[in-house]
Amino acid sequence: MIRSVLVLGTGLIGTSIALALREHGVRVLLSDVDEESMWLARNLGAGEPWRSGERVDLAVLGVPPQVVGEVLAGLQKEDAARVYTDVASVKAMPVAQARAHGCDMTSFVPGHPMAGRERSGPAAARRDLFLGRPWAICPTSQTAPEALDLVRHLAALCGGKIMELGADEHDAAVALVSHVPHITAAAVAARLAEAPEGALGLAGQGVRDVTRIAGGDPGLWTGILAGNTRPVADVLDALCADLAEAARALRAGETVTDLLRRGVRGRSRIPGKHGGPAKPYTVVQVVIEDIPGELARLFQAAGEARVNIEDVVLEHSPGLPVGVAELSVRPEEAAVLAEALRAHGWHVPK
Amino acid sequence: MIRSVLVLGTGLIGTSIALALREHGVRVLLSDVDEESMWLARNLGAGEPWRSGERVDLAVLGVPPQVVGEVLAGLQKEDAARVYTDVASVKAMPVAQARAHGCDMTSFVPGHPMAGRERSGPAAARRDLFLGRPWAICPTSQTAPEALDLVRHLAALCGGKIMELGADEHDAAVALVSHVPHITAAAVAARLAEAPEGALGLAGQGVRDVTRIAGGDPGLWTGILAGNTRPVADVLDALCADLAEAARALRAGETVTDLLRRGVRGRSRIPGKHGGPAKPYTVVQVVIEDIPGELARLFQAAGEARVNIEDVVLEHSPGLPVGVAELSVRPEEAAVLAEALRAHGWHVPK
Repeated sequence: MIRSVLVLGTGLIGTSIALALREHGVRVLLSDVDEESMWLARNLGAGEPWRSGERVDLAVLGVPPQVVGEVLAGLQKEDAARVYTDVASVKAMPVAQARAHGCDMTSFVPGHPMAGRERSGPAAARRDLFLGRPWAICPTSQTAPEALDLVRHLAALCGGKIMELGADEHDAAVALVSHVPHITAAAVAARLAEAPEGALGLAGQGVRDVTRIAGGDPGLWTGILAGNTRPVADVLDALCADLAEAARALRAGETVTDLLRRGVRGRSRIPGKHGGPAKPYTVVQVVIEDIPGELARLFQAAGEARVNIEDVVLEHSPGLPVGVAELSVRPEEAAVLAEALRAHGWHVPK
Repeated sequence: MIRSVLVLGTGLIGTSIALALREHGVRVLLSDVDEESMWLARNLGAGEPWRSGERVDLAVLGVPPQVVGEVLAGLQKEDAARVYTDVASVKAMPVAQARAHGCDMTSFVPGHPMAGRERSGPAAARRDLFLGRPWAICPTSQTAPEALDLVRHLAALCGGKIMELGADEHDAAVALVSHVPHITAAAVAARLAEAPEGALGLAGQGVRDVTRIAGGDPGLWTGILAGNTRPVADVLDALCADLAEAARALRAGETVTDLLRRGVRGRSRIPGKHGGPAKPYTVVQVVIEDIPGELARLFQAAGEARVNIEDVVLEHSPGLPVGVAELSVRPEEAAVLAEALRAHGWHVPK
């Protein structure tokens, strides 16, 4: 049972956890060195200020990975909680630093709730931030079973999907699925920083998608990458080898089909919506005008036809006040939707 | 004036051009060695079969870049048209091959309409495929002004946004904004092909976006890349240098902030919706249930509040029947929309 929780660090993750716990009637105490952040978190209804000396069931350390060990040692010294967890985006470094600071490792359960937001700070917090998203828990060989249970319970209260794995395994995984994709998107976008103006005029949706995350905060990402240097560098080496080989092959008049095929295979392994394997959806395209209410009428028509739209992408039409909406639906519903939209006067290309 | 056009090659691009021209009353004649493709294009209403000997105003070569020169030489030999253009995705190679085949260069205007679709074949054709999209025209020093005017007129009839630039300039540009992003997305995705199953469970929206285009047809892309080897290899070299330096810096305990900052700068140069500079939109998030009609009601409410939604992204919530819709609106309309949605009972996180 979790009756009381100390959230130390009222950033995006800490405040969101606090909001989720309050929904379940948990007493939440807050602490942050940043007064403005504290004020905002309190006014969002995240909890009350923690007074040093008050003992809680669980302390959640929402602090940068570099200081988890030090902060944990301080809290344990004053016996602030029965169990401790953290939310840092890398796991081997905080574990190593906790050991280096002589922390009690039986009551420490390293964790990493995946929030999937580029924004930061308590203003971006949401009590539903973790709903259905992976929440990695990385117990060490010394972690006590009762401590592990309590942190599992925390993740469940927040609606997260618990994934247990080792700290090194975790760090290698996030290097692959998050850190290297980010730095690669930045490198592709960096090429555009020096490109002639005319070249940018030929940009389409592909390069927009590839570089979207490159717009993220460089300061935040510098810190994230600094906490996972070796796994990121290892994946970067392998990636560079593939790209250098592709450049060599192209110059030699050879094909790069093998790399492209491996790309298709890797892409198909990313889980689809709702955690299952990627489902085959059919895309129905419809030409829409760029006026208020146009999408409303379109979705209204889809709803009346009892077709559920699984995903929607608006294709931009540079220079013109029309666009194409791509609606993903179950294959058996595509014809129904197309007919319904045509009946309402929309242009649905066959 | 364009009264008659021969479309040679009834693939996605050729058939879409034919459909667009028919809208304007142009007589369109079709030719393709693939009988099924011809049959489909005719049944889509793209035009009638071309009989060798019938002369047209303009011939559009919808054939792979490797054979543009050879096909052009054959057509010119039988005086099939006054003016010729092609639609290949690279431009230096077809120009060089046209010269090598001794073609008349005054009547040839190399072109590249950017369609921005991953699908291919006449079944995916749309008469509005080029609406507002870039249509590159790459005249050589020998191109006759009347020939250039006719191809400009073709692009205008199809609704394309004409961009004139040299063939080498064009190929360097598409290497930057299309070919290298594609091969890089494939390389990032290829890393996932070998990843342990658990790692994929930590995948979020970022890696989904970066690798989306890696799902494209390897055969098609092998051909595209083979036609632009040097420009692609040059950009890949520069990209590899940045990524290798990042790996070195991380191992040495140095930061990669500079690369991340250049990425932000490059990303900001990609033109926004409607061709203008990227506009700052505000994102309003709303929690929605995964049921038919839910998005309809949401857009209905937005339309009633007279707020135009500029873009919409559905965030997937693996494992749960709820999702978050991110609605991009003009900053001054965000509060209006949020209030309207709350008034209808939606949960809009502050």
